[in-house]
Amino acid sequence: MILCVCPSPAIDVTYHVDRLRPGGTTRVRVVTERPGGKGVNVARVLHRLHEPVRLVVPAGGDTGRELRTGLEEAGLDAAVVEAGVPTRRTVTVVDESAGSASTLVEPARLECWPDLLRSAEEALAASDVLVVSGSLPADVPGDGVATLVASGRARGVPVVVDTHGPALLASLAARPTVVKPNAEELAGVTGDEDPVRAARDLAREHGVTVIASLGEQGVVLASTAGCWEAQSPTVSGNPTGAGDAMVAGLARALRRDRRALESPEAVLRDAVALAAAAVLSPEAGDVDPDHHQGQLPTVVVRAQDVAR
Amino acid sequence: MILCVCPSPAIDVTYHVDRLRPGGTTRVRVVTERPGGKGVNVARVLHRLHEPVRLVVPAGGDTGRELRTGLEEAGLDAAVVEAGVPTRRTVTVVDESAGSASTLVEPARLECWPDLLRSAEEALAASDVLVVSGSLPADVPGDGVATLVASGRARGVPVVVDTHGPALLASLAARPTVVKPNAEELAGVTGDEDPVRAARDLAREHGVTVIASLGEQGVVLASTAGCWEAQSPTVSGNPTGAGDAMVAGLARALRRDRRALESPEAVLRDAVALAAAAVLSPEAGDVDPDHHQGQLPTVVVRAQDVAR
Repeated sequence: MILCVCPSPAIDVTYHVDRLRPGGTTRVRVVTERPGGKGVNVARVLHRLHEPVRLVVPAGGDTGRELRTGLEEAGLDAAVVEAGVPTRRTVTVVDESAGSASTLVEPARLECWPDLLRSAEEALAASDVLVVSGSLPADVPGDGVATLVASGRARGVPVVVDTHGPALLASLAARPTVVKPNAEELAGVTGDEDPVRAARDLAREHGVTVIASLGEQGVVLASTAGCWEAQSPTVSGNPTGAGDAMVAGLARALRRDRRALESPEAVLRDAVALAAAAVLSPEAGDVDPDHHQGQLPTVVVRAQDVAR
Repeated sequence: MILCVCPSPAIDVTYHVDRLRPGGTTRVRVVTERPGGKGVNVARVLHRLHEPVRLVVPAGGDTGRELRTGLEEAGLDAAVVEAGVPTRRTVTVVDESAGSASTLVEPARLECWPDLLRSAEEALAASDVLVVSGSLPADVPGDGVATLVASGRARGVPVVVDTHGPALLASLAARPTVVKPNAEELAGVTGDEDPVRAARDLAREHGVTVIASLGEQGVVLASTAGCWEAQSPTVSGNPTGAGDAMVAGLARALRRDRRALESPEAVLRDAVALAAAAVLSPEAGDVDPDHHQGQLPTVVVRAQDVAR
């Protein structure tokens, strides 16, 4: 079973508008809402792929009630911890005329970190892989993710971390199996503006596998064993949740074989195809298994020249 | 007692952001939420002015629960009718760097119009003035507002209508005491681009008092007795809810004296000062009675040349 810990879930609200009018009033044509947040999206993709997955997530207030209902309706096995504060929302405004999307992200809050940690540690006993995904609310101790990572590692469970800022930095010390920084984070952590070199350095220094999306330059995966780059043909759609699909792919691979990343070409191809399938999905963060299968042969993976 | 019927309330969410990034991701610094919608704002201002006011309003879903709680906390006497659908939200993004506000308005829905009408008609028996304020949800019969206006008029109760589109047009036939179209509506209804002339024509044709805000040109009030214009010094602040404060002022005047509009200079001055006080209030749609008193002497009201 794959355990997804999501410290900062959200109700993802999508507004479809004919044209966004900054500084004015915009009438919303269609409103959709559903549970979101990176860890929730990862769990949803895994569930779509028929992987056994359990979500540990805080929820509070009226939006928390909506989150619980939404997770149930999605058929997700979730241990929901009372957050003590209302679950936040994100609002994405899809501008049909401009073909663009603007996202407003409410700050995440949490008053129940010890309860969440306890719930996650209980679930760890029955878990094959641990995923910790999403930003860390301001109220959570700085070493919060690191504590979770250490718990997983102490049980010999592979751990995938997708977070940013100080929480990412702190977690590295606890040696997660995989981290998924973005290009900006890579530069921030290493001080190197070349993301591929930065990923290699990070992997070498911390003994972790680093996977990072570099936008049009594709995806880089660096580990102590080497460095690989993957490209998939550009697909048009909603890129929100593509990174979460990639994390889901890595977690699935690690569940099947905890040594999957020792020779990561096939895993990288699979994860990048899942990300492309997520972009193709009309619902952000969802994946159609047929799209995934269709994308697999289009992904080009190549080992990087070590001398670079 | 003043009865405010609000067919399309909302939870008004305000996002304070450092800088809105259309097409990108914007982190929200501060979130505030409270009950809104034009009729709710009118009732809140009246309550602030210590006027006896009763609100009839639909509410549904988790946002409806939030609406009920918020109305209670505001101390508003409200008859809440189960809406059958979730109460909508509006999201206003206040861009601190640009000093601007962008508002996203969810569509209003309602499945309980007959219940709302029944509740309003029950409350009418004890009412001195009826205010019907806000847009009409798409599901409501086209003559919905007109039916309410007719009920009020049948009981000899003065009626103030602040709505737009077909609902405004239909309501005119039922002879409300006052309508408050905007400049665009005035042009739409009369086919005349000159808003002052349009207001006069509308007043004459339907035997109603027409009050309309013309932005920088001030406020015009036209009735069968004549036409007046009011100007107040420009105050900087949030104009949201200024029109609702003006409606509150008219309703208060009509409660005190149902013939108040026969010689409307003082009423117009009071309503415009309330609107200016609403702009000065940090909370959209709120009014500080001290601001109101301070604004009163600054409002200039003059009768229009009839020959115009």
